[in-house]
Amino acid sequence: MLDNIVIVMVNTTHSGNIGAAARAMKNMGLSQLVLVDPKAAIDEEAIQRSSRAEDILHQARIVASLEEAIADCGLVVGTSARSRYIPWPLMNPRECAAKAAMASANGNKIALVFGRESSGLTNDELHLCHAHVHIPTVEDFSSLNVAQAIQVMCYEMRLAAISEPALQQEESAWGVEWDYELANHEQLNGMLHHLEQTMVDIGFLDPNTPKQTMSRLRRLFQRAGVDKMEVNILRGIFSAVQRQQKVQGVQQDAVKTGDSD
Amino acid sequence: MLDNIVIVMVNTTHSGNIGAAARAMKNMGLSQLVLVDPKAAIDEEAIQRSSRAEDILHQARIVASLEEAIADCGLVVGTSARSRYIPWPLMNPRECAAKAAMASANGNKIALVFGRESSGLTNDELHLCHAHVHIPTVEDFSSLNVAQAIQVMCYEMRLAAISEPALQQEESAWGVEWDYELANHEQLNGMLHHLEQTMVDIGFLDPNTPKQTMSRLRRLFQRAGVDKMEVNILRGIFSAVQRQQKVQGVQQDAVKTGDSD
Repeated sequence: MLDNIVIVMVNTTHSGNIGAAARAMKNMGLSQLVLVDPKAAIDEEAIQRSSRAEDILHQARIVASLEEAIADCGLVVGTSARSRYIPWPLMNPRECAAKAAMASANGNKIALVFGRESSGLTNDELHLCHAHVHIPTVEDFSSLNVAQAIQVMCYEMRLAAISEPALQQEESAWGVEWDYELANHEQLNGMLHHLEQTMVDIGFLDPNTPKQTMSRLRRLFQRAGVDKMEVNILRGIFSAVQRQQKVQGVQQDAVKTGDSD
Repeated sequence: MLDNIVIVMVNTTHSGNIGAAARAMKNMGLSQLVLVDPKAAIDEEAIQRSSRAEDILHQARIVASLEEAIADCGLVVGTSARSRYIPWPLMNPRECAAKAAMASANGNKIALVFGRESSGLTNDELHLCHAHVHIPTVEDFSSLNVAQAIQVMCYEMRLAAISEPALQQEESAWGVEWDYELANHEQLNGMLHHLEQTMVDIGFLDPNTPKQTMSRLRRLFQRAGVDKMEVNILRGIFSAVQRQQKVQGVQQDAVKTGDSD
C-alpha cells in the first residue's frame, strides 16, 4: 500500500521542511516524494534534517505543475483548512487512510498534496483534488507545519497499511468487483477539459465569466470517481455535440451566402 | 431517523408477508410502508400476521410504479443478490444503515426496496437504485423470505437510530456543510431522462439498441449523489444542446429548399 502513496509538496520555501518530510516518510515506510516547482533546493539543510532519509530526497521527482505530479494517480487528496468558496468533500486523516488503502488495493496510486508554508494550496489546486483532508487542530492555533502535517498523514497511512484487513482484492471502492479501472487524473482531467470546451463551443459557458459552474461539475465527477469506460462514453457525447455544432456553423454560413448543401 | 425511512415492497404475492413486514417495522420503530402494484390484498391473513401492527397496514400507500414510490426520496437502496449485468454499488446492511442515518440527518427520505418473492427486483428496478444492499447468507442456501429480509434491515436501521452519535446536523454525506440540498429521485430521474433524450436528439444514442450506455451514466450520477444546483446546471447544458440541434435541423431544411435564414 505505502508504495502506492505519493507525497506531493507544492512551492515549498524552506529546505528544512523538505528534509523533515523525507524523514517522516521513511520512518513510516513511504518513499515517493514529488516536489512541484520547489522554491527551496535539496541542500545541506534538507539533507541534515532528513536524518538517514537522504535516499528519499535523491529519488524525489521535481515537476513544474501540480497536474504533472498527479497525472497517474487515481485518487488525489489535498490538505486544507476549509474550502474557500464552494463546499468540497472533506475527510479526516483516518478516513483518508481507509480510502487510500482501498484505492491502493485496486491498483491505483494516491497523491497526498501539501501546500505552501505561508498560504497552503490555491483554490485551483484544491479543485484538482477529489477530496480534501483536514487534520484536526485547536481552532485558534491552527498553524501545523507542513512537515508535521506530512508526519501525521504518513502515520495514519502506516496504521492503515499494517492493520489492513484481508481486503478482497477484487472489491472496488463501491463494494463490488468493478468491470473497468478507475481513470487516472490525467484522463479525468482530459474529460473535464473536453466538457468545458464543448460548453464554450455551444455558447453555454462564457470563458470570461467566473468559473463556479465548471468547479461544480468538476467536483461532481471527482467525487463520483469515474472509470475508464465512463470517460469514453462522456467524451463520445462531447465529441458528438461538437461535431454537430461545427455542422451547424457550416450550415449557417451556407445559408447566409446562398450556397446549397 | 426512522420516520424518514420508507419500506417499499414490489409486486408482493403473499399477503402474509405484507403482514409480517408491518409487524417487523412496528417492532423496530418504522412506520412508512409502500406497496408497488401489490399482487396480494391487505386481507385477514395480512392482518393476522401483522400481530398488533394493523395501523401500519392501514396507513400503507399503494402505488402503481416503483418510480412513484421513490419520487420524494433522496437515497434509494434496493435489496439484491448480485447485480446481473454491470456492477452496481453494493453495501452490507450495517453500512446501509449508516448511510441512511446520514441522509436522514440531512432531511432526506430513504427508500429501502424489496422485490418479488419469486424473482426479486428486475434489472430496471435495480437500476433506479443509488446502491444495492446484500444481506449475507450462506451461499448455497440463499432463500431469505422477503419479510425476514425486511426484519433484518429494520433491525439495522433501529440500531443506527438509537446509537446515533451526535451527528453534526449541518454535515452532509461529503463531510462538510453543503450549499444545496440533494435532489430527490424524481428530480434526478428527470435529469437522466433529459440526458437520454438529448443523446437521442443528437444521434449519439439509438433508442432501439441495448441500454448499457444509459445504465452506466445513470449509475455514475446516482453513486455521486447529485444536488439541486448540479441538476439545474446539467439540464441547462442539455437544453442548450437540444436548442442547437433544433437550429441545425432548421438550417439544414433551409439550405435544402433554398430558403435563406
